[in-house]
Amino acid sequence: MSTKHLSKGSKNPAAFKGKLRLYSNRFCPYAQRVHLVLDAKKLQYETVYINLVSKPEWYTKISPMGKVPALELENGDVIYESLIIANYLDEKYHQNALHPKDPLQKAKDSLLIDRFNKIVTSMNKVLLSTGRTLDDQENNIREGLDIFEYELGRRGNFFGGHKPGMLDYVIWPWVERAELLKLFNTRLSLRKDKYKKLMEWKNAMIEDNSVKKTYLDTNMHIKFLQSLRAGMPECDLILSQL
Amino acid sequence: MSTKHLSKGSKNPAAFKGKLRLYSNRFCPYAQRVHLVLDAKKLQYETVYINLVSKPEWYTKISPMGKVPALELENGDVIYESLIIANYLDEKYHQNALHPKDPLQKAKDSLLIDRFNKIVTSMNKVLLSTGRTLDDQENNIREGLDIFEYELGRRGNFFGGHKPGMLDYVIWPWVERAELLKLFNTRLSLRKDKYKKLMEWKNAMIEDNSVKKTYLDTNMHIKFLQSLRAGMPECDLILSQL
Repeated sequence: MSTKHLSKGSKNPAAFKGKLRLYSNRFCPYAQRVHLVLDAKKLQYETVYINLVSKPEWYTKISPMGKVPALELENGDVIYESLIIANYLDEKYHQNALHPKDPLQKAKDSLLIDRFNKIVTSMNKVLLSTGRTLDDQENNIREGLDIFEYELGRRGNFFGGHKPGMLDYVIWPWVERAELLKLFNTRLSLRKDKYKKLMEWKNAMIEDNSVKKTYLDTNMHIKFLQSLRAGMPECDLILSQL
Repeated sequence: MSTKHLSKGSKNPAAFKGKLRLYSNRFCPYAQRVHLVLDAKKLQYETVYINLVSKPEWYTKISPMGKVPALELENGDVIYESLIIANYLDEKYHQNALHPKDPLQKAKDSLLIDRFNKIVTSMNKVLLSTGRTLDDQENNIREGLDIFEYELGRRGNFFGGHKPGMLDYVIWPWVERAELLKLFNTRLSLRKDKYKKLMEWKNAMIEDNSVKKTYLDTNMHIKFLQSLRAGMPECDLILSQL
């Protein structure tokens, strides 16, 4: 299986029957969510990386909107949308359960995932901004993080308790990229004194075996963001470093 | 329990301990989703109706964003967001299960719920429009309905098979209001010849016992929409007809 992103003109590699196949992109945080869930559940899968700027012609037959992630199942069915895939995997494969068993706790985690999406929206506005004032986004991010700092204080080392659960993994990709905010406004970096629990959590997450498999450091994310903002996103940056 | 919508200056009625309480609004389609799920699962609950234009001061203590629906649980915890509440109820109370048992079928239904949200977005743009051209919205609605017509053809009388399931109930509130589109453009009414399965499904849904409990006819929805568009939504319209 190629580790390069497939582009226009490429062929879809023949699938191994009976194996999960994830269509992904190394810099897509939504695709990273699904890698994290697959890895945390110790599922076997192969990955096909898609160049999102110059998509292979065959890709819309796999994923109708042309988005990653998309998961091709053993029977050839394809599902997409990161959270729908994540829920599917946790319901289908019972080992290493990631969602809380208690329906109320699960509902509360779903509300927090919803809440985190507001942070993501603000973060994207900052990272892709063209210089306008970003005070509102800064406030949104800070208000959101306050909630997560408080929540972590009640829960333990991870949102999932003594080990990472679904909430930890589905918010992680944006925390991995959080230092990027420093490029735009130093006030937006995670203050170590204010977000003490979150900082400890971040350090613990970096040591997690599933996180390690897809982790890219801030320098790599900066290079990708620069190429993205310049209109020429380089998905294969990581390969040029190998 | 009052059947009137509570407004600014009102008091929150004392809760019966150990009973589910739904904060709702008679004309809110998202709140209707939760009524349908509670009724389909034959759960006992009380309803407090909230005037969304002149909200009771105490309401943001119940629902942080001030939105309905919000469900107060037996232990005093409150959860919100219609789909999160619906999932919670189906996971917590096993009688009359609404989600498919098969994780893949459940994932596919989740994708369809997501797809339906695009129809809702376009429908809202039409219903709350101020006269701009709405061709794009019409196309979006038609493309979406084509998918649902096709899907129903494969499934039976209901999306849930021989009886309504989660997908049927969570999309129903907007189908109940679909005739409103006729007010704005006759091309947007559901064409009986093109959407034969959906029309049969709609007729069958109207006869469903859970749907009957919250059903309002098109005339009532028109009156509410007119009051909404005039900037003075009358939540208690239904009471003046009793």
